[in-house]
Amino acid sequence: MVEGVHFDLRWGNFEGLGARSLAVNLSDIAAMGGRPTACVVNLAIREGISTKLLDRIYAGLRTAARESGTDIVGGNLTRARELSITIALLGELGGAAMRRDTARPGDEIFVTGTLGDAPLGWRLLAGEIKARGNARAYLIGRFFRPPNRLRAGQRLAAIKPAPSAIDVSDGLLQDLGHILERSRVGATIDATAIPVSPAYRAVMGDDLIHALSGGEDYELLFCLRPGSRESELTRRLGVPVRRIGRITRRRRLEVIGSNAPDFAKRSGGWDQLRDLTRSND
Amino acid sequence: MVEGVHFDLRWGNFEGLGARSLAVNLSDIAAMGGRPTACVVNLAIREGISTKLLDRIYAGLRTAARESGTDIVGGNLTRARELSITIALLGELGGAAMRRDTARPGDEIFVTGTLGDAPLGWRLLAGEIKARGNARAYLIGRFFRPPNRLRAGQRLAAIKPAPSAIDVSDGLLQDLGHILERSRVGATIDATAIPVSPAYRAVMGDDLIHALSGGEDYELLFCLRPGSRESELTRRLGVPVRRIGRITRRRRLEVIGSNAPDFAKRSGGWDQLRDLTRSND
Repeated sequence: MVEGVHFDLRWGNFEGLGARSLAVNLSDIAAMGGRPTACVVNLAIREGISTKLLDRIYAGLRTAARESGTDIVGGNLTRARELSITIALLGELGGAAMRRDTARPGDEIFVTGTLGDAPLGWRLLAGEIKARGNARAYLIGRFFRPPNRLRAGQRLAAIKPAPSAIDVSDGLLQDLGHILERSRVGATIDATAIPVSPAYRAVMGDDLIHALSGGEDYELLFCLRPGSRESELTRRLGVPVRRIGRITRRRRLEVIGSNAPDFAKRSGGWDQLRDLTRSND
Repeated sequence: MVEGVHFDLRWGNFEGLGARSLAVNLSDIAAMGGRPTACVVNLAIREGISTKLLDRIYAGLRTAARESGTDIVGGNLTRARELSITIALLGELGGAAMRRDTARPGDEIFVTGTLGDAPLGWRLLAGEIKARGNARAYLIGRFFRPPNRLRAGQRLAAIKPAPSAIDVSDGLLQDLGHILERSRVGATIDATAIPVSPAYRAVMGDDLIHALSGGEDYELLFCLRPGSRESELTRRLGVPVRRIGRITRRRRLEVIGSNAPDFAKRSGGWDQLRDLTRSND
């Protein structure tokens, strides 16, 4: 997480920043069904950063580590022109890993939680959009405290065969694109099924752009052989689950539904996103 | 390794930069007597960095990984205002680890190779000092290609009891200071025994400042129960070894010898360096 790219110190909430820096890594472990064990932290600090500020970042990081059962076993401190936090996190698997290359035509596609909140929170902080009161607080909270889906991921990985899964870090369409590419399949997404929060709706109305492309949400996206019920999965994973589409044989990503944004209908695929999505491989 | 702090792209040798970014991490494994297994690489890139330049950095990194038996198993790419390479490296131990807290009064202190070459190389590249011909090429080479002391470290760790050891990354006095602090002991260093290269001597004459405080050399510093011969250790480790001093009960770091620099005689300890040295804990 790099200052000026992923966050701005004027946003305050330095504890949240520290917590988030670990959470985004925990999410990768969750998406494979693993359990985090230990991490190392590289902190690059610039002039003008007070010890107190660093202490607050580190306090948030330590709390997030404790809550997830992760040991901070070492790290490094270096000078730089901008503040950045780089974490390498180790995890282990109890059984099969969830992978990106195992989706099959006919699989149903699900997501946990709601999408688009964190990218809206980011845009509120950056002043790119406006909102007040509860909606604003909720969306910013979703940015600073990504959901912990470790237990949901572990329970998902116990399903046989293990689902193909990924975390939504770059945006639903891009991250689904990773699965489609690796699994050599396509998908149809029903925009009317995309789960968004009341706060999202209060700010964006019917516009799904941030829910489809926003990234930063760190919810889980997964593909199951057909026949699972949303209510059953929600109970099993301990988090709301929504069915949003289906894996297809034709290698193309299609977004349907009356509220599908034009850009998604037009794109008809994820090729144009490939440069961006390579960044998380 | 951060652009503008640890390197400058105008120095060229991008392969060397990539190799060095892994080598400095391998050195930490060597200093514990371990074997590297796998690493993840975080590359932060700024505008104006060409793909070709990144490819050259990565080629150097891959070569260094292959030569040391390290798998590059993943990583991340992010935008930033300056180029930086952050590596987290996993290693494993065959037996006992060499630690920083096991030095005892009476132990003899040794170092591998020569000290001060890499910091001189850095200063030559930065234009802070001048030198020509072979000496210049040698010193710059020592900066870009830190020594690989993995095998020496493994052989050292097989000695019983396992020596207290550390790699010389911050400078001999600072790194020895880590051992002294953790082991709750002191040391006397004989400046006349500090090993320096002919190239170092050609540039610096009798001035030992960079050999004592320069850092960047990534040689091994270790403490053995008394009685080991330099020649025997040199044969056993496969690298030149020099005895440079002794661990003392009095918690103070003393540099003696006719060529001991004033700053080292005056400092009488490592307290003033503690803020810096914390960075590598």
